[in-house]
Amino acid sequence: MSFPWPEPGTALADVPTPMPVIDEDRLAANIARAQDYLAGHGLAFRPHIKTHKLASVAQAQLDAGAVGINCQKLTEAEAFADAGVEDILITYNLLGPARLAGLKALNDRVARLTVCADSETTVDGYAGAFTAGKPLSVMVECDTGGGRCGVQTPQAAADLAGRIAAAPGLRFHGLLTYPAVGGAEAVQAFLTEAVALLEAKGIDCPVRSNGGSPDLWKAHLVPAATEHRAGTYVYNDRSMVRAGECGPQDLAMHVLATVVSRPTPTRAVLDSGSKALTSDLLGFADHGEIEGLPGARIVALSEEHAVVDLTGCTGPLPTVGQQVRVIPNHTCVVSNLFDRMVFHRGGVVTRVEPLAARGTVW
Amino acid sequence: MSFPWPEPGTALADVPTPMPVIDEDRLAANIARAQDYLAGHGLAFRPHIKTHKLASVAQAQLDAGAVGINCQKLTEAEAFADAGVEDILITYNLLGPARLAGLKALNDRVARLTVCADSETTVDGYAGAFTAGKPLSVMVECDTGGGRCGVQTPQAAADLAGRIAAAPGLRFHGLLTYPAVGGAEAVQAFLTEAVALLEAKGIDCPVRSNGGSPDLWKAHLVPAATEHRAGTYVYNDRSMVRAGECGPQDLAMHVLATVVSRPTPTRAVLDSGSKALTSDLLGFADHGEIEGLPGARIVALSEEHAVVDLTGCTGPLPTVGQQVRVIPNHTCVVSNLFDRMVFHRGGVVTRVEPLAARGTVW
Repeated sequence: MSFPWPEPGTALADVPTPMPVIDEDRLAANIARAQDYLAGHGLAFRPHIKTHKLASVAQAQLDAGAVGINCQKLTEAEAFADAGVEDILITYNLLGPARLAGLKALNDRVARLTVCADSETTVDGYAGAFTAGKPLSVMVECDTGGGRCGVQTPQAAADLAGRIAAAPGLRFHGLLTYPAVGGAEAVQAFLTEAVALLEAKGIDCPVRSNGGSPDLWKAHLVPAATEHRAGTYVYNDRSMVRAGECGPQDLAMHVLATVVSRPTPTRAVLDSGSKALTSDLLGFADHGEIEGLPGARIVALSEEHAVVDLTGCTGPLPTVGQQVRVIPNHTCVVSNLFDRMVFHRGGVVTRVEPLAARGTVW
Repeated sequence: MSFPWPEPGTALADVPTPMPVIDEDRLAANIARAQDYLAGHGLAFRPHIKTHKLASVAQAQLDAGAVGINCQKLTEAEAFADAGVEDILITYNLLGPARLAGLKALNDRVARLTVCADSETTVDGYAGAFTAGKPLSVMVECDTGGGRCGVQTPQAAADLAGRIAAAPGLRFHGLLTYPAVGGAEAVQAFLTEAVALLEAKGIDCPVRSNGGSPDLWKAHLVPAATEHRAGTYVYNDRSMVRAGECGPQDLAMHVLATVVSRPTPTRAVLDSGSKALTSDLLGFADHGEIEGLPGARIVALSEEHAVVDLTGCTGPLPTVGQQVRVIPNHTCVVSNLFDRMVFHRGGVVTRVEPLAARGTVW
């Protein structure tokens, strides 16, 4: 295929669409701001690479002071180990002999690798696969109201930590949670109680890891935590603006799109469909915002088309062939659809980087 | 990375998850059934490859009697031209000098390449890029109620066809529509009137192309059409079952997933998140159906987790580490997330094929 990935120096207006592009300056500012805030509150920062899957961005996060990275899959972790990252936390229950074999090989080559567990089944799988010669660090995942994975009570956390601590091939590393938005109080209460129970058992709990970009700037409200994990903050997106967690000037990702049809006076169709923006709504009723076109609403996506209702527009309407910039509802899923990421500064392409962890499966 | 794509002979129970898998027999039956039905009604069939993006499946569709394939992007068409397909329709307005340059190169090497247009801007772009020496075939896209692209009236279709016919580098090839579901009557009326207007202008309209899997089995209700295009029919999905267009026995794609957490008695968490299933709802309130687990509802997706509410289940509940089979809401977007597709027959892997058109951008 002859896809013309843009050369450095190309103006964004000449970049093929649909294409996500990253503003270098905003990216750098987002990395610095989060790191400074967390460091200022004595919290370690462990950025989640699911958002960008790029070696250079992970390196920039580490250079800024991050203690390591957070991955969600074994194969993501493998890709970043290949890129030289030496401290990796996989916030996932890794199950089954094949996945455990991959995890064992990874643990042999990463300086500091940590995984998590929320069940005896997961812990027993780890315990059977690892030995004291090269033990595996394991955290207990706690459900502090997020309603996804995690043990349900501080007592269950302490019990599972005890099981980990008792396994010769495992080391208990601490507690982690991905909380409900605005759940600082619940996180603080859960962690405090769990740490006390662990102390009573004589089990050290060096790391208490809190998470989420939506609550990044409230991380200091959980003094029981020692580190915070966040992914979306690095690019930000429409959902983060709505949540008040960033302003429009902090949006580092836009999806460039072209108006391919103007079938009626109030309808435009863009080439950024669900295979460019994804269908993630995150509570919105529409599929992203078009910068500089107030009142326009992306009312429907098919795979390669976005249907825009222009009824509410007051300014000049876009014409066929015109390029527009879409602010996606959710950046992390957009990155996942493209093999490479295009960076720019001031509207001029600076570089195009292959995604280190594209096509990762488990 | 060391991802263990399964070898032929592997039992599905040992296939790494999350992973879409295709039932060879159901796939073959779906291809044959659609082809037989359309041929029986004297309609040409042009399958849309967006659903599978696989060279072998396109070849099976052509071997069954399809007249050619339908692509939605230039780069998809390039990938299938590379695979040897000689009749390709791109149902898209292709705009801008770079895309047109790619289109010109493609037209030079594909025996029968056709594109579409719904505006003078698009037609004029084609007209400026092609010459009588190797002209481009262009269809006029008509909006017969689908509310996406397309000229709005038969008169507008005839006018645009005239503009195409008058351009030395273009050949008017016919009319196409992607109609609203259940829009047979509107399609028939639009095409009939447009063909009459074209006849009055002395413009031949050899092809009238209707489309969509949701209306595949009603294609015979549009006698004004000469061909039908459909993609989803080849795998089918939950939305097609709901629409009554297929039965559960016709579902060729399942997404294998593993229960990674059972945090509460009524909650299970799978490893098939939005980066495996996508967030496409297609009108459903939940994110796919778990085969053999009636009453279970996939109530939320995050990127690598699916949260399942088991409250409504009556049978045995799934345990941590257990594999389940998810019927996705929408198959076409699932294929797009994986680099390769795993096929099986009777639960045993037969082959793993790289997607010919993975990572295509425009």
